[in-house]
Amino acid sequence: MTEDLAGGDLSTLRHLNGLAVIGVLRGGPALTLTELSRRTGLSRASTEDVVRELRERGWVGEAEPTAGSVGRPARRYRFRADAGRVLGVDVGGHKILAQVADLDGAVLHTRRVAVGPGLGRRERLAAVDDAVNGVLAAAGRAPSTIWASGVATTGLVDGAGRVTLSEALPEWTGVDLAAHLGRLVEGPVLVENDCRLAALAESWTGVARDAEDVVFLLAGLRTGTGLIIGGRLHRGFANAAGEIGALPAAGWSRARNHLKAWTAPGAVADVFAAARSGDREAAEAVDRYVRDLAVGASALVLTLDPELVVIGGGFSRSADLIVEPLRRELDRWCLRTPEIRVSAFGDEGVALGAVRLALGHVESALNRRPPRGAAAARAR
Amino acid sequence: MTEDLAGGDLSTLRHLNGLAVIGVLRGGPALTLTELSRRTGLSRASTEDVVRELRERGWVGEAEPTAGSVGRPARRYRFRADAGRVLGVDVGGHKILAQVADLDGAVLHTRRVAVGPGLGRRERLAAVDDAVNGVLAAAGRAPSTIWASGVATTGLVDGAGRVTLSEALPEWTGVDLAAHLGRLVEGPVLVENDCRLAALAESWTGVARDAEDVVFLLAGLRTGTGLIIGGRLHRGFANAAGEIGALPAAGWSRARNHLKAWTAPGAVADVFAAARSGDREAAEAVDRYVRDLAVGASALVLTLDPELVVIGGGFSRSADLIVEPLRRELDRWCLRTPEIRVSAFGDEGVALGAVRLALGHVESALNRRPPRGAAAARAR
Repeated sequence: MTEDLAGGDLSTLRHLNGLAVIGVLRGGPALTLTELSRRTGLSRASTEDVVRELRERGWVGEAEPTAGSVGRPARRYRFRADAGRVLGVDVGGHKILAQVADLDGAVLHTRRVAVGPGLGRRERLAAVDDAVNGVLAAAGRAPSTIWASGVATTGLVDGAGRVTLSEALPEWTGVDLAAHLGRLVEGPVLVENDCRLAALAESWTGVARDAEDVVFLLAGLRTGTGLIIGGRLHRGFANAAGEIGALPAAGWSRARNHLKAWTAPGAVADVFAAARSGDREAAEAVDRYVRDLAVGASALVLTLDPELVVIGGGFSRSADLIVEPLRRELDRWCLRTPEIRVSAFGDEGVALGAVRLALGHVESALNRRPPRGAAAARAR
Repeated sequence: MTEDLAGGDLSTLRHLNGLAVIGVLRGGPALTLTELSRRTGLSRASTEDVVRELRERGWVGEAEPTAGSVGRPARRYRFRADAGRVLGVDVGGHKILAQVADLDGAVLHTRRVAVGPGLGRRERLAAVDDAVNGVLAAAGRAPSTIWASGVATTGLVDGAGRVTLSEALPEWTGVDLAAHLGRLVEGPVLVENDCRLAALAESWTGVARDAEDVVFLLAGLRTGTGLIIGGRLHRGFANAAGEIGALPAAGWSRARNHLKAWTAPGAVADVFAAARSGDREAAEAVDRYVRDLAVGASALVLTLDPELVVIGGGFSRSADLIVEPLRRELDRWCLRTPEIRVSAFGDEGVALGAVRLALGHVESALNRRPPRGAAAARAR
C-alpha cells in the first residue's frame, strides 16, 4: 500500500523513514531537524538524510524564518501540498467529471465530458478515459504522479471496486471500475457510491462541515442518500447502507413520476421554471414530488435524528421551491425536524467527494507511521 | 462527578490517586506495587498509601500468588468487582424491575413489582419506590453504596433525565425520573429510553455482542427500536433517534391492531397460542402483524445495512411464528437481509441495559485518570 501510494517513488528510498517524516509534518507547523528527529524517533543523521532527499523530490520545503527572530534561527521544514496529486472522478448519468487536486484537496484542474444516461458500458468507459486523460494532460502530469484516485458511480459497489448493482445505468452492473481506472493511473483506486461521496464532500468542506450526524439527500431525477454518522461516512455491514429508496413505502420510486410529464431529456428544470412563473399544474407536480420525497426523508430523520439534512443534486438549484415545502412535510411526520441546508457545490459535489476519498487514503497511509523500533533499525 | 460516583466515600480520601489506581487495575491483570507506581505516575510511597486504604475499603484485594513461582513473589493486587454496586431499573407498562449488580455487571439481586399500563404517575412512581427499596433491602445495602443507577422508561428522555414525550403511558410525559430516583439512591442517576437500553444489553452480553451495527426490534404490544452503530448506542442529535414507528408509512402503528381482537389485558400470547394450534384467523392476524412490522424494519435495514437484526420484547417468546415470516418480508424489500437473532433475555433485557448504562458511567469515571502532574502534586 505504501509503495503504491507514491507510485513506486518512495520504495526506492528508505520509504518508511520518509513516510514518518511526512506524517509528522503534514497538517502541523514547520519543524526543525531536532524536533523532527524527536517526533519520528529517527536518529539526527537519518533525519537529515531523509529531509534532504524529501527536499530533492519536492515533498518537503524550507519554511520562511519566523518574523522578528534574532540571530540565525534554526531552519524549519514543512510539508508541501504541491508535492503530490490525487484524482477524483464522477461517473454520472449525464456527465463524467474528473478533477486533479493537490494534497490539501485544492482542485487545480477539471475536465468534463457530457454523456447520456442511455449510453452503453463501453461508451461510458471511453468517456471516462477521455475525461481522465484530458485532466491529466491539462495538469501536465504523468499517470505515475497521481498518488491515489477516488471514483464515484451510481449503484452498489463491493470492496474491490466493482459495481454489484446499478438500477440507473444500463449495462453498468458488474463493471470493474477499479480495474478500469487502474489502467489509466498508477496508485490505488477507490470506488464508492456517488450519493455517499457527495455527502462526504459536504461533511469535508461543504455546508455540513460542522455537523457530526448528517442525512444528505441527492434530489434529482434519481433520489439517493448518503449518511454521515459520528463524523464518518456510514457504509453499513455489506456496503449497502442508505438504500431507503428501494422501499416502495418510502415514496421515492413514486416521487419522480410526478415530474415525468415535464421531463424532456436534459430539461428537468422546466417544471421548476413553470412552477415559478405561476403554472398551477407544475406547482402541483412539484408539491407531489416533495410530499413523496419527504416520506423517505422522514424515515431517515426518524431513524437517525441527524443534526442536519443537506439537499444536493440537480434539484438543489430549485431549492426555493423545495426547502420550505419539505420542511413542512418533515414537521408533519418527524418528532424533531432538523435544520435543512442546501449544497453549494452545484453538480461538482460528487467529484469533490471522490477527491476526498482519494485524499483520505493518502492520509491514512501517511499517518501509518512505522513503529519506533522499525524506524530506528532502518536508520543509517 | 467523581465525588458522586462513590457516594462521597472517595472524596474523604486522596480520591484522584485512588481512582488512578482503580483505573489501572480494573479489567487488567493483578499488579505489584512497583508496576502500579509506574502505570499511575504516583510515587512508590503514595502508591503504598493508596493501595492500603483501598484494601481497607475493600476495593482492592490481594491476588493469589502465581502457581509455580519460586521464593517469595512480590504481592500483586487486583480490583474487586464486589467493591461497589450499580442499580438498574426498568420502569415498564406492566412491571417495574429493579436489579442490583456488582462492578462486573453480575446481577446479584432482583425485585419485580407488577403494574398496569393504565396506572397514573403517582402510583407508578410509588411502585418504583417499592421495587428499588425492595432490591436494596434484599441486597442488604444502604442507598449510599450504589455507585450509579440506570433507569429505563418508554418515550423520549432529555439530557437531564426527564421524560419529554410518552405515548404509551398516561401522565408520564414530564416526569423527572432522575430527580425521583435521586431521592432513593445516592450517586448519579442516568435515564434512557427502554428500547435503546434493551439494544445496549444485547450488544453488551446478549446475542449481538460480536456485532458493530445492530438494529434491535422491541416486538410486543408496543413496537420500538434501539440502534447500535459502530459498536455504540446511537442516540441522535437531540436524543430522538430510532423513532421510525412515528411514521405511518412504516406500518408499526397499524401492526398491533391486527392482534387487537386477540388482546385481553395481560393475555397477548393467546393469538400466538391459537395460531400455533391451527386457528386460521389467528395465523392470519400474526401474518398481517409481521407484514406491517417488516415495513418499518426494512426502512431501518435499508438505511443502516446492519450486520444483525435482534428481536426482543414480549413477542420474542413466539419467535417460532415471527422470525421466518419476517425474514421472507425483509427478503422482499431489502437489498440484503441481515441475520436475524432472537434475544435470550426474556423480559429482563431492558433492566440489564439499565445496569449497563450505570456501569458505563462508573467505567468512564474510573478511566478518567488525573493528569500525571495533578496526581504527583497530590501525592504525599
